Amino acid sequence: MTPILTAFKSSPDRGRGLARDMPVRWALEEVGQPYEVRLVTFGEMKAPGHKSLQPFGQIPTYEADGLVLFESGAIVLNIAETHPGLLPSEPEARARAIAWMFAAVSTVQPPIVERERSSLLERGEPWFAARQPVLEQEVRLRLADLSQWLGDADWLDGPFGVGDLMMVTVLRRPAGASLLGDYPNLAAYVERAEARPAFQRAFAAQLAVFEASSKS
Amino acid sequence: MTPILTAFKSSPDRGRGLARDMPVRWALEEVGQPYEVRLVTFGEMKAPGHKSLQPFGQIPTYEADGLVLFESGAIVLNIAETHPGLLPSEPEARARAIAWMFAAVSTVQPPIVERERSSLLERGEPWFAARQPVLEQEVRLRLADLSQWLGDADWLDGPFGVGDLMMVTVLRRPAGASLLGDYPNLAAYVERAEARPAFQRAFAAQLAVFEASSKS
Repeated sequence: MTPILTAFKSSPDRGRGLARDMPVRWALEEVGQPYEVRLVTFGEMKAPGHKSLQPFGQIPTYEADGLVLFESGAIVLNIAETHPGLLPSEPEARARAIAWMFAAVSTVQPPIVERERSSLLERGEPWFAARQPVLEQEVRLRLADLSQWLGDADWLDGPFGVGDLMMVTVLRRPAGASLLGDYPNLAAYVERAEARPAFQRAFAAQLAVFEASSKS
Repeated sequence: MTPILTAFKSSPDRGRGLARDMPVRWALEEVGQPYEVRLVTFGEMKAPGHKSLQPFGQIPTYEADGLVLFESGAIVLNIAETHPGLLPSEPEARARAIAWMFAAVSTVQPPIVERERSSLLERGEPWFAARQPVLEQEVRLRLADLSQWLGDADWLDGPFGVGDLMMVTVLRRPAGASLLGDYPNLAAYVERAEARPAFQRAFAAQLAVFEASSKS
């Protein structure tokens, strides 16, 4: 069966490829696996039907051959484990690639998302200005360590793989991307990833959904 | 070789089993794998030697048979993949267990950590009182969905496994645990996990390190 993923019917990111279906689309394009997309509204996401697939009422979900999966990181890892190309076969390199996936979503992402949330939700609050430099510094702490690790390598650990795919997904969020100018090797790393044909196909596909939704 | 993990020489959690070595110790105890611990100071964690093992200067690291790994989630998954007991062999159940690991660290954990950070670092700020209910609500949103998913089951998806181990690790953090009284099935879930002999051995081991450090 062709895998089916869910995505926003009308994405709040306005087609910038920041919604969580993007890394799943990208992984599927990297391994050459065709897929279908079922679009859901915000109301549908929070309804019992969707929550039986995704307990937190979010997108994406992934259905393939009887498997029902949620969490973009877990879906990307499953795609990499069931298709060649994104995960080394050597056990130690494979384990390290997975470590970089966890680093992306649980170490680098949280301060970026928090800075983003503050920008979106706290702009009218009296504490907005005071919190901004603190939040920026938390993001910079992660970016500086990541930049130091990457050095002049193309990818985090050997050839491009799931760790890079998830890390670039996180770094593309505006609250991180807006600081990348100060970390030229990270900026080049993101550009290198975005230049991949699979990224570009995934980006175009999610943009097409947004453009169709904004016309209707 | 006996695996070696790193832990705080003097843990800021004062032996409450909240540091990131705890889930790794717990997983090793669940599978019956003896291990050694190398204790590091805050200074050592940020020095180049440790950062060559852990790019973000944190604990734990894990060294076993030539493998050097970081990120507690990735280490726990590696332990589960190389020892029987924590991960189903059936591919779909295995993928779902991994989805729950990602849900723990990237969906449930961030609002809990943010509430904790505010409690620790913003108590003197003029906005502390105003932010508290917002942060509490973000945690409750995740707890309510998780509680609804769990229902009257013992564990998240079939027998106890890596997904439960990481989820309970996250729920034990005080900024989440203090709200569990309103979600009795989640409170019972955490208690059920803490009653496991492997949890108790891991907890005792990390507590012994703290007690030794506070005497010296």
